[in-house]
Amino acid sequence: MAWKWPASFQPGRVNHTHINTIVVGAGAAGVGLGVALQDYKAGEFLIVDRHCIGASFLRWPKEMRLITPSFNTTPFGILDLNAVMLHTSVANFLGAEHPTGKQYAHYLQQAAIECQLPVQAGIDIVQVEAPEKAGTRGRAPTPSGPGTTFRLTCRDGSVYTADNVIWAAGEFQYPRTHSFPGAAHCLHNSQIASFQELPGRDRIVIGAFESGVDAAVHLVRRGVHVTLLHGAEQLATQEQDPSRSLSPFTRERLAAVTAERSNLRVLANHRVTEVKRERGGYTVCTVQGSFFSEHQPILATGFVGGVAPVKHLFAYRDDGNILLNEHDESTLTPGLFLAGPLVRHEHHIFCYIYKFRQRFAIVAESVARRLGLPVPDDVAATYHANQMRLEDLSCCGKECVC
Amino acid sequence: MAWKWPASFQPGRVNHTHINTIVVGAGAAGVGLGVALQDYKAGEFLIVDRHCIGASFLRWPKEMRLITPSFNTTPFGILDLNAVMLHTSVANFLGAEHPTGKQYAHYLQQAAIECQLPVQAGIDIVQVEAPEKAGTRGRAPTPSGPGTTFRLTCRDGSVYTADNVIWAAGEFQYPRTHSFPGAAHCLHNSQIASFQELPGRDRIVIGAFESGVDAAVHLVRRGVHVTLLHGAEQLATQEQDPSRSLSPFTRERLAAVTAERSNLRVLANHRVTEVKRERGGYTVCTVQGSFFSEHQPILATGFVGGVAPVKHLFAYRDDGNILLNEHDESTLTPGLFLAGPLVRHEHHIFCYIYKFRQRFAIVAESVARRLGLPVPDDVAATYHANQMRLEDLSCCGKECVC
Repeated sequence: MAWKWPASFQPGRVNHTHINTIVVGAGAAGVGLGVALQDYKAGEFLIVDRHCIGASFLRWPKEMRLITPSFNTTPFGILDLNAVMLHTSVANFLGAEHPTGKQYAHYLQQAAIECQLPVQAGIDIVQVEAPEKAGTRGRAPTPSGPGTTFRLTCRDGSVYTADNVIWAAGEFQYPRTHSFPGAAHCLHNSQIASFQELPGRDRIVIGAFESGVDAAVHLVRRGVHVTLLHGAEQLATQEQDPSRSLSPFTRERLAAVTAERSNLRVLANHRVTEVKRERGGYTVCTVQGSFFSEHQPILATGFVGGVAPVKHLFAYRDDGNILLNEHDESTLTPGLFLAGPLVRHEHHIFCYIYKFRQRFAIVAESVARRLGLPVPDDVAATYHANQMRLEDLSCCGKECVC
Repeated sequence: MAWKWPASFQPGRVNHTHINTIVVGAGAAGVGLGVALQDYKAGEFLIVDRHCIGASFLRWPKEMRLITPSFNTTPFGILDLNAVMLHTSVANFLGAEHPTGKQYAHYLQQAAIECQLPVQAGIDIVQVEAPEKAGTRGRAPTPSGPGTTFRLTCRDGSVYTADNVIWAAGEFQYPRTHSFPGAAHCLHNSQIASFQELPGRDRIVIGAFESGVDAAVHLVRRGVHVTLLHGAEQLATQEQDPSRSLSPFTRERLAAVTAERSNLRVLANHRVTEVKRERGGYTVCTVQGSFFSEHQPILATGFVGGVAPVKHLFAYRDDGNILLNEHDESTLTPGLFLAGPLVRHEHHIFCYIYKFRQRFAIVAESVARRLGLPVPDDVAATYHANQMRLEDLSCCGKECVC
């Protein structure tokens, strides 16, 4: 099946191409946003990715699985939690409740193919310049006028210009590796191809949120003696919001390995202060003493996100997160949008697929408005009815009775 | 916390009590419907159960878990798949993705307590007589008039009368044990307290839908050699609707034990024709030969449902299922409603909690109308927005792209 390339875009002729909207990143957010732009008929667009569709998921450790469960609820009006577009069921397509990264990449690729999304792989955007008139809030740019559009430069020197840029580069390929001195001596969990193939009979894991517990569970099941160090008073099991708490999937796995095996020790109140390379191994220093292992400690301290080329075009919140307006748009640079797990509004964290997919429609509607195109009400209603459009965040985070 | 008993009902004085609506069964459907009747202010009601709240779940085999996954999505506008009322999160309350029966009963009991539902335990309804004027569709009965109300007789001889009866007795306590000659020699999976405690090194399991595969998985993990016999050409993994297909949870578990162990054989095209008690054991005859085991075969052929006392008050479809109108009401007996996993409409099977909970609102609205009470639009809208109200079934079962 041939891609439906935008009329103004000729693959292969990429020395200078103008397009209404460029989506950077072809992961869950980029693919989902592409479908939303299509559904809203929000102008011509192109999705670019430095690797390929679902590349981050393809890089997951072999044993790692989506935390959020898929179930075949889609035909019954409850969209599969891991779906990025309407009418699709990850559970049904993959036959899996917690798909592996490889499986999920397959779903994204299939979605892109079925929708004939215009995706250009192998395009690595290294620099983004804002329109000169950026800062004039609310004013639609004159399409293609010099200096009035975004200018995106690729690693190979070719240039795209666009009226809107949607940054959807995600987190996974941008690990947090400088949390403390010597962190670079460690192996970040995102760099592990398979826990099965890691050598050694003992291993220190630093960080006990989802990735840390995930790493520990896989290693403990293999019989590896794992010391899981974390700085909190206890494991994150008390919060209501799953973005701040261990997921039920992970709690159940942790409870199972703890009940069945004795080769896991979880040490709370052990914030790591430094990792030293010495005595043919690694010393992990914490606020409560040191731990030694011959094997490279696993660093599971999360991700910083890949926003370098657009970093200067956003303002930031006091907590360091990107500041967005109600359209998930930069407050400094109109026409620059953020999509995916880095999106924050007040205390709401959009780090799961079922959360951040609810903002695709909001962005697509803004893009349409900026291009002077109508925003079809029926599309918005359908997205809303299928847990794909969340505008009013005041309803989130209500206390549960139970 | 004291129950809010309906004003007309005095616990203890049950020789003859009239109430607007009686809900029979305090399981997932009965509790959920009670909350819906409360939310809709649909008159006074009483929930009766022959055992207690969540009694069926308390009878589950210890290792059995809900097939549908819970996740903490509730605060983000996607109601937990296993919740029976708004604003509750099974995942959050129990910290479990696939709760055990005991855990889930705890959730139901907590929900009933928080909502102060009027539940009367230990009431076993053995006979239900319809109002004499039943058949006069659409006419609201005169409350309490003799012969104009339902008359429910309990095992102890006491009597309730009610204007509406909602039958929510469920399936689990009513196993299908007569599928073939000698089926009664078998142990129905619902009668197993724990797979861990079943004796023997080999076991025949009859039926390979959810319960059969569940039994097989638990036994195989323990090292028991299991022969799983079923009559279909292959395991049910191809259907889109999870009511007709093995769930992702079960597929993943089956794939895992199949990959890790060699003590499971699954035999398709082996419809069982008879079970004989002989030679100090059991011979299971199939259309393709016989199998012998010293141990009682496990019968996993499903449930018939507990509708005996109201069986004569319903009409039936050609496939044997109960015929319901668009309000989930008997077509023969106005004011008699069915709730829970036995509900069918055309080809739609409401066997999962996230499915049948979407009909509580429909029933509550009908009850309100029959009692001449207003149906509050805002409640209906809130139920609808939270995947708790499904009126138009035409949207169900759409083909998925993936």
